[in-house]
Amino acid sequence: MFSHVQDLQFEAKPDGPDPAFARRFQEVLGGKWGEMTVAMQYLYQGWNTRLPGKYKDMLLDIGTEELAHVEMIVTMIDRLLDAAPLSLDDAKTDTLKAQYAHSNPQHPIHNGNAASPMDSMGNPWNGLFVTASGNLYADFHLNATAEMQGRLQVARLWHMTDDPGVKELLKFLITRDHMHQMQWLRAIEELQADGLDGVPVPEAFDLENEIDEFAALYVHASDGDKATEGRWAQGQSFDGRHQVTVQETPEAYGSRPTLPPGDPRLYSTPPMDAKGMIQTIKEKLT
Amino acid sequence: MFSHVQDLQFEAKPDGPDPAFARRFQEVLGGKWGEMTVAMQYLYQGWNTRLPGKYKDMLLDIGTEELAHVEMIVTMIDRLLDAAPLSLDDAKTDTLKAQYAHSNPQHPIHNGNAASPMDSMGNPWNGLFVTASGNLYADFHLNATAEMQGRLQVARLWHMTDDPGVKELLKFLITRDHMHQMQWLRAIEELQADGLDGVPVPEAFDLENEIDEFAALYVHASDGDKATEGRWAQGQSFDGRHQVTVQETPEAYGSRPTLPPGDPRLYSTPPMDAKGMIQTIKEKLT
Amino acid sequence: MFSHVQDLQFEAKPDGPDPAFARRFQEVLGGKWGEMTVAMQYLYQGWNTRLPGKYKDMLLDIGTEELAHVEMIVTMIDRLLDAAPLSLDDAKTDTLKAQYAHSNPQHPIHNGNAASPMDSMGNPWNGLFVTASGNLYADFHLNATAEMQGRLQVARLWHMTDDPGVKELLKFLITRDHMHQMQWLRAIEELQADGLDGVPVPEAFDLENEIDEFAALYVHASDGDKATEGRWAQGQSFDGRHQVTVQETPEAYGSRPTLPPGDPRLYSTPPMDAKGMIQTIKEKLT
Amino acid sequence: MFSHVQDLQFEAKPDGPDPAFARRFQEVLGGKWGEMTVAMQYLYQGWNTRLPGKYKDMLLDIGTEELAHVEMIVTMIDRLLDAAPLSLDDAKTDTLKAQYAHSNPQHPIHNGNAASPMDSMGNPWNGLFVTASGNLYADFHLNATAEMQGRLQVARLWHMTDDPGVKELLKFLITRDHMHQMQWLRAIEELQADGLDGVPVPEAFDLENEIDEFAALYVHASDGDKATEGRWAQGQSFDGRHQVTVQETPEAYGSRPTLPPGDPRLYSTPPMDAKGMIQTIKEKLT
Amino acid sequence: MFSHVQDLQFEAKPDGPDPAFARRFQEVLGGKWGEMTVAMQYLYQGWNTRLPGKYKDMLLDIGTEELAHVEMIVTMIDRLLDAAPLSLDDAKTDTLKAQYAHSNPQHPIHNGNAASPMDSMGNPWNGLFVTASGNLYADFHLNATAEMQGRLQVARLWHMTDDPGVKELLKFLITRDHMHQMQWLRAIEELQADGLDGVPVPEAFDLENEIDEFAALYVHASDGDKATEGRWAQGQSFDGRHQVTVQETPEAYGSRPTLPPGDPRLYSTPPMDAKGMIQTIKEKLT
Amino acid sequence: MFSHVQDLQFEAKPDGPDPAFARRFQEVLGGKWGEMTVAMQYLYQGWNTRLPGKYKDMLLDIGTEELAHVEMIVTMIDRLLDAAPLSLDDAKTDTLKAQYAHSNPQHPIHNGNAASPMDSMGNPWNGLFVTASGNLYADFHLNATAEMQGRLQVARLWHMTDDPGVKELLKFLITRDHMHQMQWLRAIEELQADGLDGVPVPEAFDLENEIDEFAALYVHASDGDKATEGRWAQGQSFDGRHQVTVQETPEAYGSRPTLPPGDPRLYSTPPMDAKGMIQTIKEKLT
Repeated sequence: MFSHVQDLQFEAKPDGPDPAFARRFQEVLGGKWGEMTVAMQYLYQGWNTRLPGKYKDMLLDIGTEELAHVEMIVTMIDRLLDAAPLSLDDAKTDTLKAQYAHSNPQHPIHNGNAASPMDSMGNPWNGLFVTASGNLYADFHLNATAEMQGRLQVARLWHMTDDPGVKELLKFLITRDHMHQMQWLRAIEELQADGLDGVPVPEAFDLENEIDEFAALYVHASDGDKATEGRWAQGQSFDGRHQVTVQETPEAYGSRPTLPPGDPRLYSTPPMDAKGMIQTIKEKLT
Repeated sequence: MFSHVQDLQFEAKPDGPDPAFARRFQEVLGGKWGEMTVAMQYLYQGWNTRLPGKYKDMLLDIGTEELAHVEMIVTMIDRLLDAAPLSLDDAKTDTLKAQYAHSNPQHPIHNGNAASPMDSMGNPWNGLFVTASGNLYADFHLNATAEMQGRLQVARLWHMTDDPGVKELLKFLITRDHMHQMQWLRAIEELQADGLDGVPVPEAFDLENEIDEFAALYVHASDGDKATEGRWAQGQSFDGRHQVTVQETPEAYGSRPTLPPGDPRLYSTPPMDAKGMIQTIKEKLT
Repeated sequence: MFSHVQDLQFEAKPDGPDPAFARRFQEVLGGKWGEMTVAMQYLYQGWNTRLPGKYKDMLLDIGTEELAHVEMIVTMIDRLLDAAPLSLDDAKTDTLKAQYAHSNPQHPIHNGNAASPMDSMGNPWNGLFVTASGNLYADFHLNATAEMQGRLQVARLWHMTDDPGVKELLKFLITRDHMHQMQWLRAIEELQADGLDGVPVPEAFDLENEIDEFAALYVHASDGDKATEGRWAQGQSFDGRHQVTVQETPEAYGSRPTLPPGDPRLYSTPPMDAKGMIQTIKEKLT
Repeated sequence: MFSHVQDLQFEAKPDGPDPAFARRFQEVLGGKWGEMTVAMQYLYQGWNTRLPGKYKDMLLDIGTEELAHVEMIVTMIDRLLDAAPLSLDDAKTDTLKAQYAHSNPQHPIHNGNAASPMDSMGNPWNGLFVTASGNLYADFHLNATAEMQGRLQVARLWHMTDDPGVKELLKFLITRDHMHQMQWLRAIEELQADGLDGVPVPEAFDLENEIDEFAALYVHASDGDKATEGRWAQGQSFDGRHQVTVQETPEAYGSRPTLPPGDPRLYSTPPMDAKGMIQTIKEKLT
Repeated sequence: MFSHVQDLQFEAKPDGPDPAFARRFQEVLGGKWGEMTVAMQYLYQGWNTRLPGKYKDMLLDIGTEELAHVEMIVTMIDRLLDAAPLSLDDAKTDTLKAQYAHSNPQHPIHNGNAASPMDSMGNPWNGLFVTASGNLYADFHLNATAEMQGRLQVARLWHMTDDPGVKELLKFLITRDHMHQMQWLRAIEELQADGLDGVPVPEAFDLENEIDEFAALYVHASDGDKATEGRWAQGQSFDGRHQVTVQETPEAYGSRPTLPPGDPRLYSTPPMDAKGMIQTIKEKLT
Repeated sequence: MFSHVQDLQFEAKPDGPDPAFARRFQEVLGGKWGEMTVAMQYLYQGWNTRLPGKYKDMLLDIGTEELAHVEMIVTMIDRLLDAAPLSLDDAKTDTLKAQYAHSNPQHPIHNGNAASPMDSMGNPWNGLFVTASGNLYADFHLNATAEMQGRLQVARLWHMTDDPGVKELLKFLITRDHMHQMQWLRAIEELQADGLDGVPVPEAFDLENEIDEFAALYVHASDGDKATEGRWAQGQSFDGRHQVTVQETPEAYGSRPTLPPGDPRLYSTPPMDAKGMIQTIKEKLT
């Protein structure tokens, strides 16, 4: 259960309008790695985990904070859209003309110059962006990744605007993404220290069921001659369980598949003397 | 540029048909964390990276191998669909009746009893599943995650079938996902050792531009009382740059947003004496 | 900015597991008219409105409450998925066998038997489900509709389960949807009383710019002979501005469109003596 | 069963080309609230209703008319795309240069400079835009909303062009949306007068099954202090069945959820002494 | 402009309900190759073509007819959904139990037991299913294909039901798809006879701009040894313009790509001495 | 199983950057008719076909080659994005300013100035673009169509750039699409010659089950008076099995559908004396 205060976690005031940047800012609101995704992902992971205690509590803390980030970016986009020209003629300056060209037409037409849950190309936010697998080790790795991709995107946006008010909010977002990267990396360590999982994930799957021969085989399927210089292709594997070996070209351990004819009632092209076949099928089917 | 041999990397022969499992197997073929995703993700990362050498070469190696995994799973699904009943009456046994109910209707109707690039609920594979950000550190974390989620899903499928032939292929896939987890974790270490990036990602963003006050502040926004027991909420942060402090309840550093009235030509509800407003707008617009 | 308590707004405990119902319950979680939609829609409308005061405050109240509904349904689905069979053989009873067949395969494979933001057919929640147009009159009508469609769907679910714990939550949801229908209908009245808008929406668009002849013309385009018995096809129009008249069959006021040839560089089929045309194009283009 | 005449219901001739406006016009053709949506929505509602007579006949009338609106907008977009520059160099004037920038690249590449069923950001029209619930009261509210959102969008487009021919069509569309708003509002009145449904929708759900305590409780979950000034938070509820009361802060009636451990075969993080747990799982599974 | 009669083009009355088949039937209503697709595709092609006369007129004829097919299938699905059990307990017979399991949960919950524009797996109909390229030769090939895929799917459905009423409608649909295949194949011949286009499409593109060496080169990139037995790999090419030759293994005519370092402000992993690089970037950026 | 060489099949080097064209080029990479589609479509058809031999081998040849086309276009887009301005101020020249406006914001923000699997409007590549029906005759028609639409799109792109390096690659793609059109048309001939299928597809469906009366009936549903001048509306049908006749206006062979009341537990609007009905339902349900 949530409650809400209207004061923002941090200020979200641009020094002036910029509809072209408003469109770009949508990426970190409603894009695959945007704030909608991390808010929903952490909340679903928190609600769904079957392990009560510090991990669940932490997930719900951060998920709740991310909702405040959604709110700030929405507010910023709304303000960046003030005074957006409605048409080319409406644009008084060359800058506004160019911005008109690069703005998002749904901002005025669908939203009355305001934000919506989509990315910078207009793809709507999608429930498949969220993963809450129940396995916290795998999910915390995804969360660390999400904060990396997120900080990377905001750092790129940093170079796409000179507006001091916008940059102030970007600073805040970059700093929080820094904080959250640290947090997920610590949480991964702690999961392992608590013996809750480890590599290879899921650790509880019995390694007896693996095929040892393939557990540390580096398959050199492309012809780049530097690939095997990395430590992934030599020495002990990361989990210390195997010595890595290199297979110089991909080798086949399976045979060429030939599929059975299939059900004639599906009218797929039949694998045999076909002229007779069609006759046979017709006879069978009538 | 690719070449192809028809022999499979590993055998993909079930002992018998199982249309219900064929539907479930689609998840690791065309789902968000399926083989289509990792194949395309590694190839796009390899083609797009601006860093020539071992990392690029390795990405293209693994991406090319994953295409062979797509091929094996497609073949397995095709074979699991042999002898699928076309209707309830057509199902001779109770098992087949239940399987009919749980199968994917597009398998027979759209594909003639064969696989297609979709997940177990029928969502088509989607280009947004792929991330190739140009930043290898962030992307390798995602790749490690993908192999964890992938191995987790195949390990779950392991308990959903008793077919020895199917289990043989699952073993192979689980083993390769083990190998690939190790590989990405090594590659992350090596990127850092090569000084190419580090945490917080992207490391090259000048920390002077962060707001120090928020760089290690744990915001306790939900009321779970265990959250602050984790190491993420105390001591030194993961990158050793800060001491973590806890904010007991979320605090607002920004003000309540009030948006300006907006362009009357968009007919949004106006923020002022409205009766007069509509009149004014009408006058202005005519 | 939000804060969260882990206690639920209302109890969400089924008396027993029911994976088939868990799948169906997803509809009112992540479907077009589900709780994800109303939560996000009211919050975006609240954040985006340019009218400060009671309407904005109310939108944020209700949007925040709806997040608690998302949380309860997620929890309920998680519990309904306990003890779900992983395969047909795994199902001990006939009921579980049938439920296995009707369950959502991503629940175990992708989520570890837990909820995710999708509908009952597996379509992920989509940002386009949200409309926040800036015009509160139009949006409050949509909100009233959303609560009607929502209450209708939960009322249908009511007859699909006998589990007393599930029914208790359904009661709560149906009651809140009742409350919220009342609220939006009142808010529409109040918007009109406050002179902020009215029919036809948007009222501020100058009616002089309409074409009077078509403002109350009922076009009888299908041959059902009862259509004109309704009050929509006779007497005064709803806003009292016109007398409705009936056009017995659709009448054309425009001419047959003939499109100009188009740019030959697009290689569309050309509208003229074609043999010569291809020659001409070739000549022009070389 | 349909028949078609090629004469347009109304003229659709711009005075000149405007590829940037062609892109924007797509919103009311293939967007969520565009003509494709209302055409399909009314037809599906008409075909699906189980109530023969005036309502069904009226739905099929209007759905059929809306197909003519689709046709007119397609034609207008086709004409607006004449003479669109294929590249920056190809654009002879500054206006055309800017329009090139803001145009839809699929218009030339995919369609040969013609319309397609998508919105102004390129999202394809989607079957989920249609709701035909079987409950006409809920659906007519949606239809009224659709005409409000539709008229709002066309009224916004009105200020984005000066082309007299385009404005003539916009006038027609705005007028018809006016007419159709009136019609759906009348139809809602009439449904109620005919005793077919009423608020709360669906009225036939037995109110005894509601929980009275929550039927008129206004939950004040956000801290805006004006929210309770509205009539939705005081006095009699809209349906006259209850007195509204205000809950000053959200109150929990449910307990904190703790989920059971879950099936170990799903490898979710286990809720107990974990080191031992993994061992146990391994033993059980082997 | 359209008009509508409520009588169906052909009878759509099943002998009894069958909710499982209703779900399957959705494929040919709202699937990629369903009636919604062909109706919209032919109408958009007809509206968009810049060639007035017999081709345009014919497209509008068939597109209009296909709308009647949509109507019949909707009606059939509605009737197949009568008496569908709402729950397992509700299902009186084993057949109904199994059908419950295989039915579409949105049919009752979202639609009140009626059809909607989606396929058999629940994917909503999508505007991208439609192609109207402006080039009639390419589009008529697609139309012929659509009728082939459509007839194939209905022929498969033929074996999934024994209901005489359903089979009667399937017969009609199969027959019309036969007719329409013939029609598009004739239209392709006629386009060519009229000199409007030919192979390779678009014929007007100057062959001088092709690279002759690759115009009839069969690239043998997979190791299947039968591939070159086909006439596509020997003798004259289909258009008689070249002699086909076989390249025994894929040959590279381009060089290995090395991408330039890229903009440091995007924080992609840099292609050079990295430790120094990060320092340099930091210096540049501050 | 695949192997890969890093040399490109053909050179992919532009003479200079062009971010606006990079966006447009995405259409033939990740659009509906782009190289991702044909690569995946041919591979899935090859893996899925139940007919071993030359057709399967050929499909795998061409599918494998198409992967090399994906690689070349990705490389070209990456290079076209070098030096793209990050903001309007960043753009040094008017051309770059305009290109900034027309570029794809995800190229820098999501990908670090590189390609991704989406079309020119940002729609992600979608698994539904692939059809592998099992019936090779229908699928080869689709493949021929895909090469026609593909060549058409590249031919259009030809006129949107003057860059000699880009044009060189376009030449190659246009030539290969020419080759592949020829190949699929030959393969259709050969399938027929081998007696594997023919028109109407699927030929094996017993024509006795068709309704002869509709097998060659041209339904004149729109009022264009030229439609019946085509050979599709007169003489022998394409397969020589029937004489075509024309139905001057669409005729109904079915009756007006009236649907039964439906299950009252779904609360659809009931088809009868409604006031009494609601009472009855309430009584029944309580």
